Amino acid sequence: MSSCFGRNIRITIFGQSHSPAIGVAADGLPFGFEPDMERLHDFMSRRAPGSSDYSTKRKETDSFKILSGIKNGALCGAPFAAEIENSDTRSKDYSLFKDMPRPGHADYTAQIKYRGFQDEAGGGHFSGRLTAPLCLVGGICLQILEKEGIFIGSHIERLAGISDERFDSVNLTPADFADLKNMVLPVLDKDAGEKMSEAILDAKGIGDSVGGVIECGITGLPVGLGDPMFDGMENLISSVVFAVPAVKGIEFGAGFDACDMLGSENNDCYTIENGIISTETNNHGGILGGITSGMPLIFRVGIKPTPSIFKSQQSVSLSEMKVKTLDIKGRHDPCIVPRAVPCIEAAAAIAVYDAYLEYKKYL
Amino acid sequence: MSSCFGRNIRITIFGQSHSPAIGVAADGLPFGFEPDMERLHDFMSRRAPGSSDYSTKRKETDSFKILSGIKNGALCGAPFAAEIENSDTRSKDYSLFKDMPRPGHADYTAQIKYRGFQDEAGGGHFSGRLTAPLCLVGGICLQILEKEGIFIGSHIERLAGISDERFDSVNLTPADFADLKNMVLPVLDKDAGEKMSEAILDAKGIGDSVGGVIECGITGLPVGLGDPMFDGMENLISSVVFAVPAVKGIEFGAGFDACDMLGSENNDCYTIENGIISTETNNHGGILGGITSGMPLIFRVGIKPTPSIFKSQQSVSLSEMKVKTLDIKGRHDPCIVPRAVPCIEAAAAIAVYDAYLEYKKYL
Amino acid sequence: MSSCFGRNIRITIFGQSHSPAIGVAADGLPFGFEPDMERLHDFMSRRAPGSSDYSTKRKETDSFKILSGIKNGALCGAPFAAEIENSDTRSKDYSLFKDMPRPGHADYTAQIKYRGFQDEAGGGHFSGRLTAPLCLVGGICLQILEKEGIFIGSHIERLAGISDERFDSVNLTPADFADLKNMVLPVLDKDAGEKMSEAILDAKGIGDSVGGVIECGITGLPVGLGDPMFDGMENLISSVVFAVPAVKGIEFGAGFDACDMLGSENNDCYTIENGIISTETNNHGGILGGITSGMPLIFRVGIKPTPSIFKSQQSVSLSEMKVKTLDIKGRHDPCIVPRAVPCIEAAAAIAVYDAYLEYKKYL
Amino acid sequence: MSSCFGRNIRITIFGQSHSPAIGVAADGLPFGFEPDMERLHDFMSRRAPGSSDYSTKRKETDSFKILSGIKNGALCGAPFAAEIENSDTRSKDYSLFKDMPRPGHADYTAQIKYRGFQDEAGGGHFSGRLTAPLCLVGGICLQILEKEGIFIGSHIERLAGISDERFDSVNLTPADFADLKNMVLPVLDKDAGEKMSEAILDAKGIGDSVGGVIECGITGLPVGLGDPMFDGMENLISSVVFAVPAVKGIEFGAGFDACDMLGSENNDCYTIENGIISTETNNHGGILGGITSGMPLIFRVGIKPTPSIFKSQQSVSLSEMKVKTLDIKGRHDPCIVPRAVPCIEAAAAIAVYDAYLEYKKYL
Repeated sequence: MSSCFGRNIRITIFGQSHSPAIGVAADGLPFGFEPDMERLHDFMSRRAPGSSDYSTKRKETDSFKILSGIKNGALCGAPFAAEIENSDTRSKDYSLFKDMPRPGHADYTAQIKYRGFQDEAGGGHFSGRLTAPLCLVGGICLQILEKEGIFIGSHIERLAGISDERFDSVNLTPADFADLKNMVLPVLDKDAGEKMSEAILDAKGIGDSVGGVIECGITGLPVGLGDPMFDGMENLISSVVFAVPAVKGIEFGAGFDACDMLGSENNDCYTIENGIISTETNNHGGILGGITSGMPLIFRVGIKPTPSIFKSQQSVSLSEMKVKTLDIKGRHDPCIVPRAVPCIEAAAAIAVYDAYLEYKKYL
Repeated sequence: MSSCFGRNIRITIFGQSHSPAIGVAADGLPFGFEPDMERLHDFMSRRAPGSSDYSTKRKETDSFKILSGIKNGALCGAPFAAEIENSDTRSKDYSLFKDMPRPGHADYTAQIKYRGFQDEAGGGHFSGRLTAPLCLVGGICLQILEKEGIFIGSHIERLAGISDERFDSVNLTPADFADLKNMVLPVLDKDAGEKMSEAILDAKGIGDSVGGVIECGITGLPVGLGDPMFDGMENLISSVVFAVPAVKGIEFGAGFDACDMLGSENNDCYTIENGIISTETNNHGGILGGITSGMPLIFRVGIKPTPSIFKSQQSVSLSEMKVKTLDIKGRHDPCIVPRAVPCIEAAAAIAVYDAYLEYKKYL
Repeated sequence: MSSCFGRNIRITIFGQSHSPAIGVAADGLPFGFEPDMERLHDFMSRRAPGSSDYSTKRKETDSFKILSGIKNGALCGAPFAAEIENSDTRSKDYSLFKDMPRPGHADYTAQIKYRGFQDEAGGGHFSGRLTAPLCLVGGICLQILEKEGIFIGSHIERLAGISDERFDSVNLTPADFADLKNMVLPVLDKDAGEKMSEAILDAKGIGDSVGGVIECGITGLPVGLGDPMFDGMENLISSVVFAVPAVKGIEFGAGFDACDMLGSENNDCYTIENGIISTETNNHGGILGGITSGMPLIFRVGIKPTPSIFKSQQSVSLSEMKVKTLDIKGRHDPCIVPRAVPCIEAAAAIAVYDAYLEYKKYL
Repeated sequence: MSSCFGRNIRITIFGQSHSPAIGVAADGLPFGFEPDMERLHDFMSRRAPGSSDYSTKRKETDSFKILSGIKNGALCGAPFAAEIENSDTRSKDYSLFKDMPRPGHADYTAQIKYRGFQDEAGGGHFSGRLTAPLCLVGGICLQILEKEGIFIGSHIERLAGISDERFDSVNLTPADFADLKNMVLPVLDKDAGEKMSEAILDAKGIGDSVGGVIECGITGLPVGLGDPMFDGMENLISSVVFAVPAVKGIEFGAGFDACDMLGSENNDCYTIENGIISTETNNHGGILGGITSGMPLIFRVGIKPTPSIFKSQQSVSLSEMKVKTLDIKGRHDPCIVPRAVPCIEAAAAIAVYDAYLEYKKYL
């Protein structure tokens, strides 16, 4: 099993890149909530390919069809289900990879695990395309959370070694997210953004690819979401975020940098202003003991460079059991990071909403 | 809910630092397996405090009593349960922290979440002491996996900014783990270890604390463990590892470093030797598409410096709602990293064993 | 949450009676298995309405479209998803029932629970129509189990007070199921079947309805499926069977009759024939301690009479808060029992297959 | 896996009849709630053996020790765990049954499933003794529910073929439960109770045993608990109730009797009195579409006669693979039904509390 998540919401993401459709079934969304479909389409279009020079030329309109769970524009208590039809698929591009696995892809592990029965076309169930239904259900969770005063935004904190500024983890507000949602390369420092843009196009020019780091911030969380041990906010967020392909690391607050600090440097002192308790710094990233502290929740996610590149690479032929040179053709993003940004927001929203429902049980 | 993990094994860790006992109930362990109790005690003693200058003087013998699940020395199919009695507790040390939360601790978040009903003594359910039952059940999983040829080891990759060598992620073997299990500061480079030792004692001398990074390696994994999306090896391992207090980040393979590489640098070429397929490098850390590739599984975990330090810190009084200075007394580790090493191994073993059971369903 | 089942398979059934589609997403089906689509359609057509005088005139072709999870005719390891489009819907028939709930239906409980946001059309998510996707995924499980030598069949053991013979619970074989699958009123005693037929038509003639009991048998089960306590075969089967609307009771083996027996009468003596251990009687219904004994598994399910009848009934107007007379129009089955037969088989198959996967973990 | 239950509470029941201890770990109980320990002991003593002529002479004091989860008398948010030490065990009584399984017991199925590794002493994990921790955690749930105005009571509806009256399913109130809790044989009709008493003693006199039916009622439920399909109240209650050994059937409301009724007889008309909607009859047993209707929830559970009898029975020797005569010695209840009464109440409380937490998520 694999493609199911959740304690309080239960999400199953289905589909292969070239199956008749991909989609999602989600149980546990709150009846009565009216998703804003236009905003949902906008959110999903941030993920969709074909919109910039940084991404593949494949057209995936990502226009979805709701199958169930909505009545008169509102969630009706029955599971929400939606599908996105697959079209513009070129299955023949992929037949080679069952025998000669692409380095950095799931071709080899899928071939052995599923003994050849997997659907290899377009990467099958491992395709980045499966993040479309993740964004669909995550986009609804984002809207639900916003109604509760919880906002999620993110930017590219690093790309091809070029660093953006970081979020102001103490004073972060929803206003900080507004521009980011409209940028193809969402960054805080526009100069850094331009350099990132060049780096992507440079990599594209030589048939190579680049990776990066996405920083995600969440504001408006009440104190008390998350549970100790296995259901802490870090556990929950990680367990959804790693569903986004190419994610190889996650850190919360000061993260790995905290490891080099003294306790006296890393500890965040408490303070009171206008009767509200907060911390003067936010190295803890808004989570203590797995539980939200009321400070902005901050985490960063490392995305590896797109494994599909157009340079010759050494692979093996599984049928001939010998080393062979692989040349990948087709349409692939030189950098997946910009399109991964809304996916990380969607993943965070799903995890937070699950924690929020847990929290409500004991109110 | 919080303290339960698992799809295929179900683990509940119970107890507070000063409750009559802490312990674990675990369902799904394989009947017929005979845990080696001496090795289990040895494993747990690596976590127990009081054994070196780096850790607290508290004596926690961690000697456990098996309540059920064992018959004639073998797991009998019924849930395994064991308790560790709490003794040498000094509850009065902690009464202060309900009103004046310690920076970097769960005191504040627990106080708000549980509205004062939490057990604050010794950190309650948030105490690092709760890693003892994690090590107990994880230690059994380690032994089960070893019988299947799967070995787990780890070392301190960085501490107080001092770097150890990294594991040879391509050629890692169980032999590389042998010495590490007997070292108080398990490192590959003994010089680095000595510097780390000094850094801990320096921090201790000034009433401060240091953090670090633990690198964990897993050998002998078959190709095919783990599932796409939400149950990939990264998701599973993360969701257990973040149960270890003070963990603030995790990365797999090249991790965050991969984000700065070109695709052509990060992709691991396939090769064949003696009819066995492997990759020439291991930036993917033994996981592709969430599924084990047969290469050593490598991950690193960032541990923040112990939040309990003996320097004066700014906190707040929740009853008086004003800023006050907090001076922590009692017995606390200047560095939790060495004792966290077996905890990370235990967490990895639990996650891998869960994935292994999943894998067996479809054999 | 509601419409999700499973430890080892995870099934989400989605859709409302008049939503664009109903369907199912199922994770955990075995890759490589090739469902026989013709047999699957045949199985589903046993449930579909419109095929006899006993059922509604509504035409629900139940022809499904596979969205994902199949490649080259075989399950490919990714979640299986399929939809059945809704057509021939007459939503206006149902608008009345939001205000005046039908006795015996979920109209009232849904209205209060979902505060009016539920989709009332056609009974919404509570419609018997939702058993179509249950039969779809259950029909695949049936085929998977058959390949393992496990066969499931059932008949109408009682209808409108008319009793059929019971299965020979000791010597039951798959051959006993063969004819049943082709009968509109599947019974062992054809005379009883004719009387049942008359009873249904009599009830239909007076605008009333009748209920009945379905007996289900499962052969070929190995000893050892099911787990003690909460995951015994009785627990598992019940938790799926009660998903079929109108089920109000379940009993295993001698069931409620066993309550009136002496222990010496109810206990089934062991015997050995040709080296095979069995019991001479089968009051235990093939389950001891929650675990299959190798004897045929037998259970009976009580189905209440269809609540939608054409006689005037007393209801209330929720808007006017006064008692009013309700006259139901539209198309409704005078007896749901014949169409429930394959649903019970599907439910049993899902439960057994889940237990079978659990069993395989420890082989 | 087996001994774990729950979506919203997670319960693991551990122990074997003769292991050092039996007990329970439960996560998800509401922090701040103060269990009344005296009432809890009283509740558990209704289950404990040795208190009447109807039960075994074994003394199981069932006095429990709380290991964790309580602070200053209140649930503290951390998992609740408690143990009951095993004493007065005579393991030698049971050694025989690994080779010669007792008819009607789990001896044979456990021996094959666990390949001889199971703990056979005292029935191991299959012992009725394991209902003590079920009553412990269920007893706490009962108290939690009472605070919400939800009351659970039950009586012996039938025993050895002798029928008690049934609950007045329309007008049932908590007052109807008061006396029942103090009766060794809880019945509504005292004459029936006396006949039942005689029947038990008669069976005991001839070394035989009798079974019966328990009727359970739940008052004060709000409209809206339970979910459609797999998480309906019937599914939830069944999945816990079948954890009580010897249960072979369950029915809700009119149950199997409804199968013989016409729809016009079985449907419960709605009415309004003092602005409150109710039904004039309660054949639906307080559940429609899986969801509580606000009427008393009524179900009946069939308990088979105790399989351990003192008459000679035919069994087989697994080592010799031949039929042999088995004579059971030791201490066994001639009728388990009276002691099962609180177990059914505990099971119902666990299921209802789980549904109640689910319900609260969407308030």
